[in-house]
Order: sequence, then C-alpha cells, then structure tokens
Amino acid sequence: MNGPRLSGENLGPAATHGWRARWFHIIFHHERGPSRRFDLMLMVAIIASVIVVILDSVSGLHARWGRIFYAIEWGFTLLFTAEYLARLAVVKHPLRYARSFYGVIDLLSILPTYLSLLLPGSQALLVVRILRILRIFRVLKLMEYTEAGGMLIDALYRARRKIAVFLLAVLTLVVIFGAAMYVIEGPENGFTSIPVSMYWAIVTMATVGFGDITPLTPLGQLVTSLLILIGYGMIAVPTGIYTAELAAGLRQRRKVACPGCGLAEHEADALRCRCCGAELLAP
Amino acid sequence: MNGPRLSGENLGPAATHGWRARWFHIIFHHERGPSRRFDLMLMVAIIASVIVVILDSVSGLHARWGRIFYAIEWGFTLLFTAEYLARLAVVKHPLRYARSFYGVIDLLSILPTYLSLLLPGSQALLVVRILRILRIFRVLKLMEYTEAGGMLIDALYRARRKIAVFLLAVLTLVVIFGAAMYVIEGPENGFTSIPVSMYWAIVTMATVGFGDITPLTPLGQLVTSLLILIGYGMIAVPTGIYTAELAAGLRQRRKVACPGCGLAEHEADALRCRCCGAELLAP
Amino acid sequence: MNGPRLSGENLGPAATHGWRARWFHIIFHHERGPSRRFDLMLMVAIIASVIVVILDSVSGLHARWGRIFYAIEWGFTLLFTAEYLARLAVVKHPLRYARSFYGVIDLLSILPTYLSLLLPGSQALLVVRILRILRIFRVLKLMEYTEAGGMLIDALYRARRKIAVFLLAVLTLVVIFGAAMYVIEGPENGFTSIPVSMYWAIVTMATVGFGDITPLTPLGQLVTSLLILIGYGMIAVPTGIYTAELAAGLRQRRKVACPGCGLAEHEADALRCRCCGAELLAP
Amino acid sequence: MNGPRLSGENLGPAATHGWRARWFHIIFHHERGPSRRFDLMLMVAIIASVIVVILDSVSGLHARWGRIFYAIEWGFTLLFTAEYLARLAVVKHPLRYARSFYGVIDLLSILPTYLSLLLPGSQALLVVRILRILRIFRVLKLMEYTEAGGMLIDALYRARRKIAVFLLAVLTLVVIFGAAMYVIEGPENGFTSIPVSMYWAIVTMATVGFGDITPLTPLGQLVTSLLILIGYGMIAVPTGIYTAELAAGLRQRRKVACPGCGLAEHEADALRCRCCGAELLAP
Repeated sequence: MNGPRLSGENLGPAATHGWRARWFHIIFHHERGPSRRFDLMLMVAIIASVIVVILDSVSGLHARWGRIFYAIEWGFTLLFTAEYLARLAVVKHPLRYARSFYGVIDLLSILPTYLSLLLPGSQALLVVRILRILRIFRVLKLMEYTEAGGMLIDALYRARRKIAVFLLAVLTLVVIFGAAMYVIEGPENGFTSIPVSMYWAIVTMATVGFGDITPLTPLGQLVTSLLILIGYGMIAVPTGIYTAELAAGLRQRRKVACPGCGLAEHEADALRCRCCGAELLAP
Repeated sequence: MNGPRLSGENLGPAATHGWRARWFHIIFHHERGPSRRFDLMLMVAIIASVIVVILDSVSGLHARWGRIFYAIEWGFTLLFTAEYLARLAVVKHPLRYARSFYGVIDLLSILPTYLSLLLPGSQALLVVRILRILRIFRVLKLMEYTEAGGMLIDALYRARRKIAVFLLAVLTLVVIFGAAMYVIEGPENGFTSIPVSMYWAIVTMATVGFGDITPLTPLGQLVTSLLILIGYGMIAVPTGIYTAELAAGLRQRRKVACPGCGLAEHEADALRCRCCGAELLAP
Repeated sequence: MNGPRLSGENLGPAATHGWRARWFHIIFHHERGPSRRFDLMLMVAIIASVIVVILDSVSGLHARWGRIFYAIEWGFTLLFTAEYLARLAVVKHPLRYARSFYGVIDLLSILPTYLSLLLPGSQALLVVRILRILRIFRVLKLMEYTEAGGMLIDALYRARRKIAVFLLAVLTLVVIFGAAMYVIEGPENGFTSIPVSMYWAIVTMATVGFGDITPLTPLGQLVTSLLILIGYGMIAVPTGIYTAELAAGLRQRRKVACPGCGLAEHEADALRCRCCGAELLAP
Repeated sequence: MNGPRLSGENLGPAATHGWRARWFHIIFHHERGPSRRFDLMLMVAIIASVIVVILDSVSGLHARWGRIFYAIEWGFTLLFTAEYLARLAVVKHPLRYARSFYGVIDLLSILPTYLSLLLPGSQALLVVRILRILRIFRVLKLMEYTEAGGMLIDALYRARRKIAVFLLAVLTLVVIFGAAMYVIEGPENGFTSIPVSMYWAIVTMATVGFGDITPLTPLGQLVTSLLILIGYGMIAVPTGIYTAELAAGLRQRRKVACPGCGLAEHEADALRCRCCGAELLAP
C-alpha cells in the first residue's frame, strides 16, 4: 500500500519513559494488548454515542426517553473530554495534534454539549460526533482487513487521474444538459433555474430519478432520453476504470528480488530476470 | 468449489439397512433415480404451495377461490408434515436435523396452518413457507448448474473481506450524509429523524431514488448531488471487486513448472510446454 | 461465433434455375448486389412503417394527418403482402417458412390492416409490425458489425448458465422480500398483494425505484434498506460474469493449427503446441 | 492515443514572422509560457462567464443583482469578441476557422448579447456560452491528464462497434416494449402515445424510474418487471465491453520475439526474456 493515507497523527510521544510514554502507546498505537483493548473500547463508545444521537432524533423516542438520552450524552461527553485531554497530554506537540484532522473532529464532537449550557438548542450540533465514526477505519488496522482495504484504496489511487477526467466530463454534461432543459422546459415545469436543472441532470444521469422534477414537453422527454442513455452508458466508465486497475493489482506478479540486478517484481511464470537475465530463485 | 456452503444436513442415516436407510437415501441424497425423482416432486410441491400462498393474497382471487385455496393449503400442510416426520424418522440424530437451518424452516412452514385452528388469522404466517424455496438451490445440485453456481460463490467468498470493507464505507457515508441532511432539511421537508434520513441516504446512494422524500432547499440539493455522484462512482467498487475475482477464477492457468525450460504457468489443458515443447508432468 | 443464432430460414430454394431461383437469392441472401439492395430497401420500408405506426399513436398527429397515415399504412400493407407472397413462392417448403419465427411475424404484420375492414378498431394491432424491426439484426450481417455483435452474443452464450443461476437467486429474493413486505406494510400502505409486492421488490432491487409504492413503517424502511443494499451489490454479479467472459474472449489466443496434432488455438506467445509439442509456424 | 480527436483547429498561422505569428502561437498552442498562461486565463474567463449565466437564471439573484450580472455579461462578451477577432486575424484561413466546430461555438457564444439589443429577450440564448466549456478538454492537454483521458477515449474508440450494436439492441427493445405498454396500459394510465411509452421504457430500462408514469394493470406490472430485469442485466453489457477494452489497454505486453527461445510476448519494460534470459531487441 503505497498510496496516500488520511493524514495520520505522526506525532511523537511527549516522553520516552514514564506514564506519558506508556499512555502514548496505549492511545496512539493499535497493535497489541492494552492499546488494542483501548481502541476497541473507544470504538464501542463512539458507536454507542452515535446510536444515542440517532435515536434521540426520533421524536417518539425523544419524548419518552429524552432525559435519559441527555444523561447518557453528558456521560459520553465527559468520557471523550477526558480522552481528548489525555491525547493532548501525551503527545510531543499538542498543538499539532489539535490542528490535525482527527484532533479537530475530536474537539468538535465534545463542544456542542458544553455550548448547550450557554445556548439552548445548540445540542443539535452533536451530530458532528458522527464524524468520529471515521476512526473506525483507523482501528481497522487492528484487524486483518488492512490488506483488503489497502488493495481497494491502491486501485482508487492509481485510477485517480482517470476518475478526475471522468468527473470533469460528467460535470460538463450536467452543465450543458441542465442549461438545455432550463431553456426547453422552463420554470413552469419545475426547472426553476439552471442550478435546479443541474441538480435534476445529476439525479437523472446517475439513474437515481427521484421524480420530483420530470420533463413534460415532448422535446424535454427526448433530451431526457438522450441524457439517460448517456448516463446508462457512462456508468461503464468508472466501473471499467476501477475494475481494470483492481484486476491489474490482482494479477499476481511474483515478489522475488533478482539476484543479479535486484529488480523486485517479475511475471508469475518468469524464470529469468527481465532486466539482466539472471536466473530467479524458485518461489 | 472450496468456499463455504449453506450449512448442509451432514446427518448420518439412522440405520445402514432396511427401509430407514433406503428412505434416508431417497430423501437426503440428490443424485440418482428415486432420490432424484423425490427431489423433483418436492420441488414441484414447494413451488405449487408458494404459488397458492401468492395467489391467495390477491383479494379478488381470495374472494372467489378462497375456499379451494384453503383446501389446497391443508393438503400441502399434511404432505409437508408427512415429509417432516419422515425426515425425523430416518436420520441418526433427529434433534440435530430439527435444529438445522432447513429443519427449522421445514417446521415453520407447516406450523401456521395448525396454529390457525387455535388462533384464527395466524394463517398469514404461511408466507414463511416461501423460505422453503431456498431448497431449490440445494436441488440444483442435481443439474449441471453446480459448476456455474460454484464459480459465482467462490468469487464471492474470495472477495468477502473487500466486500465487508466496502459495506462499512457505505454505512459510514449513510450515517454521515443522513445526519447532515436531517440537520439541513429538517422534519418539515420529510427528513423527520436521522433513521429516516439514513433510509433516504441508502435509497439515494444506491441510485434507487423513490422520490418519497426529496431535498427542497438549495443546500440540500447540493449535498444530494454530492451523495449521488459518490454513489454513482461507488457502484464501481463491488463490480470491480467481483469482476476481478471472477476473471481471476476464469483464467485457468496451471501452475506447473516445465521440466525442460522451467516456464511456470501453462494453460489448464496443456500437455507440453508452449515454449520448449517438453512434456509436462501430470497435475 | 459458435453460439446459437435466432432460428434462421434454412429453407432451400423452390427451384435451382429460373426466376424463382433468382428471386430466392435476392430475398433470402444478404451478401451481394441485388440481394443487398433488396435488404436495404426492406429495412427502410420496415423502419418507415414503424415510424408511421408510432406517429399515428400521438393523438394530435392522428387528428391532423390520420387519413394520410391510413393511406400510407395500406401502402405498406400491400407492399409487405407482396413480399410475403413472394417469399412463399420462391422457397422449397412454403409451409416451413410460414411456420418459422420470421414467417409468423411477417404474416402478423400484415393481417391487422385486412382485419380492420371487418372489425373496425383492430388496427391498433398494427403495432405488431414493430416486431419486424428484429429483421434489422439479420440484415446487420451485411455490414461489418457481425464480428462485434458475434463477440457480444458469444460471451452471453458462454455465460448463460451463470446468468440462469443469478436470475434464480434474484427471483428467490424477490419472492421472499415481496412476501415479507406484504406482511410488514400490508394493503393499507400500497402493498395490496404478494404479486404487487413482488413487482415492487423487482423495481426496488434493480434500483429503478418508481416511488409509486414506498414503505411507510420503520420496519418496512429497514427491510427496504437491506433489499436495496443487496440489489446494489448484486448488480456486480451480471456485470462481473459478462465482463469476465468478454475479457476471456478478447484475450487473444492465436488461431494457428498445430502441424503435428492440428490443435487450432494456442496462447498468444506459444512457440510449441501445448498438446504434442510440435513447433508452431510463425504468425 | 491513435483514436480520433474532436476536429481540431489544424489551421496554419497567417504569417511565419511578426506579431501575427507570435499571437498565433499564444492563442492556438498550449504548451509553454505565454500560450499556457493565455489558455489558463481563457479557461478562468469561460468558467466565470458560465457561472454568471447560471446565477442569473436564479430568480432571487436575478432580482437583486440582475443589473450587475448584465454588466459582467457585456464585459465577457466584449472580451470574447476581441478573442474571436484575434483568432480570425492570426490564422491563415480565417473562414476555415470560422466554420470549424470551435469556431462556430465561439461565435454563438457572443452573438446573443448583441442580438438582445435588437430583440429583447434573446439574451436567454446566452446559455449557449456554456458549450465553450468544452474547450476545457482542449486545455487539458496542458496538464498531465492527457494520458489518462487518452486511454479512456482509446478504449471507447476500440469499443465503438460493440457500443453501436448494444445501442441498436436497446432501441429495438425500447420500441417493442414501448408499443406493448401503450397497448396494455393505454392513455388512461398515462401511456398517452407510443413516443411517451418509449420515453417511459428508456426511463425504466436504464433503472432511472422517475415514477411520473407507472404501470397500473397487473399485466403491465408483469411486463414492466420483465423490462426491468432485462435492463438490470443489460447494464452489464456496456460495462463489460468497456472494462474488457480498458483492461486490454492496461496490460502492456510487448510483442517481441526472444532471439534465444522465441517466446513472443514480454512485459513492456523487459530487457531480457523471462524464460531463457536472452537479450531482447530494442523495440
């Protein structure tokens, strides 16, 4: 996995010995014993707190258990506050952590509860806590899922330019068809402005088709049919790009260093190095 | 086909001789003469009983032929009861069968009719009988479709970790976009709670787009467009994963080193090396 | 292209000499001079007659040009009648042609106009004429599109068993989810019967999502989410099957007969026959 | 990239020396210093003018800033007019440029503003300016995205015949199913004419499913289910075609026979045969 990662916390420990070094290991590492257990507990706490936020949004449940949810929310807020302070305490550069991607999310996920003491209602912002769920991908490193995920992300990374060109083509089509439908159908048929038409063009081209806005004139329906056929065909492009890259990644190149020149990868059935011709060792 | 199978009935026969051994063969084996015929008849009976349940749910047909359907239902129930008792009688460990996946379904598919004598209306539960249709896949072993199905399931099995990572990514996006749309659009636009928003996010991201809930604010439409583009692109991921695995499965190259020149991979049906012509060893 | 074709008119000519043999060539062959011109003219006539049927169905156009459309219709009917009679006249076994797939369509496409003299209104059946459009695929043989089409159909043919297993799995899921949603949502939410629920399940699983029927209960929305995720993932299966087969077809095997044993296809870089080891000729 | 390109402006300069030659370089070339800067500025101007057209279509913004948008529009029109005249001045054959694809778009994108002085309201035609956005793809040549885009277009080009056959099959199905649904459902259920039914068939088959027209009769729902299953399966065809071509493009094997053992295909960067180690000839 040589692709880019979500900006990690490449933050050194505050100390090499003592409790700060030990806790740095527990909090920021993911591999063994206590740090593994810490990660799993954190994961459970994050998912539980997210579930509480989700359930609290259901008006029926809020009416009945709103007070209990409120208490649990405070419990998780205090817990995450303690965790946040601990993270600040054990890293070498607390500010660098505080400004990192995960550092900002960690802070944002506890602020709303405190703010709600001053500004009633700001509690709704607690949904930000949901972003903490992204930490799951980080904790996945614990498990054997790294390789699978790595392969998926590698293929995505190798295909990034093709995907960018594809997205540019999609956006160009969206602008052109959005403007065309705005002129053809007009505000009286629901295409109230070009941005709304562009929203409709995305919904249509990606074969979602909500049906909140639909063409009513024959010409509009003709143009829509054209857009749909293009969208139906274009779905082949990201799929093709991604599949081809993934297949290229799966095609087993043998990782065997050439004893002559050191070239590290050869075709599965290669007997000799394709660079210097030296005989390769048996696998 | 080395992947996992639906937990089979690896249950020995109750006896090695006599009618129980013979009937064990007929009921639990699928290959030859009488057991093949038994399976086909069972299949016909299951599909016929499912069709009766389906037709009986149509109010027009129920009004006219409800009594006949009721009679047929009892007929199938008695038939399946006899089959269930026969299965219990001929296996070595009746309890193990009764608690197996298919054993539970077999029981559940006959219970509702008997229950309806005590509790009128519980007959609606008969739709459970539909699950018996899963036996079709088991009976497929009869036919030449095993290899095709096995290849599909093998590829699925090899890709299971990548699929799990993909589903986790989808669910994370669903939670984040669901919460965001709940905050942006709010209950007045149909996003009545985070769970409902999450349902909407799944409907949108998978390009289903019922249109029962749609964004009405400009910001909501922008976020929706983003979600749709992500979903439109992400459909490439399961497709890519599955295609790459399937293609790897189809490319049947035999890993056998040529004794002459050592070339390591040859076509599945090669007898001689395609490079030097030396005879290849039997696999 | 070794796959199966649409049942052709493998009908011998009625005579080996004279006008019948010549017209047999013109009508039933597709390759050269006059038979090629005949096919192109027939194609134009079929498409023109289909366009007239389509335009005549638009009430506005029917009101204005209905009489003209009616006249053109009779013109095409007489033309196609003459063609039909000519076909009958020049083949060896007229009955065999009359009962062939294209023979029946040819007859059905002229009958409605005559019938409309006796039964007013039966003219609507003229849309059957649209099926004549299938002849286009036959005429494609004229053009260089044969190879492209042949490759697509070959891959489809090789994948037919996998596709059958896939369709069986889809139908099983449709029955199970259809029945489940009928029980969960019930007639009051639009799921009026199991067949209607099955229709909804197909619409949902294939990510069409009309929105004419939508789940309203929380449990129904949960089950729907599950069905959608399955459908979103399952779209990978036909794509994967087809892509893998097509890729296998594209992977250039060299068509060179082995001088030793005659095996006709070898890997692109094969020097010696993989069967007998004889040296292959340079490409 | 040997596929066809959007018809370029292969127009020689008007002069080999002097300001016209210099400006020809700046305007029509894309590679270095000033011509690169000119392209980037043009791109920014095009995107800005498109954004103004888009924003001006929103009635709320038009009411508030309509006059400012009008002024900016005139600014861009004058700018693009100057650019258009400059292009005419520096090319050898001004007429050939004026009639080229981009030449026509360049003219159409400035005309509406002038027309609006004579015919009030013709300003809405300014959306044509959006087509200038296509120039982006031309400017992409500046960046390293050429290769990625080239590969995507190459695969599309190689697959063009298969795509044509596929589109023909889709259109045939659309005509047949459209006509069938018109007969089955009829105008009273929204299928008011065969063209409308064909629009519905495209919307359904491509899994868009607006829901503006839906089948209401049982037979119509059955036929719809069939159409959906066909469409769900057929999405595999363009994807399969495109993926297979793209994968074939990615697999860069060099066709060079080894002088030692004759093995015919080697990896793109191989210097020596992977079987016998003999040095390969330069390509």
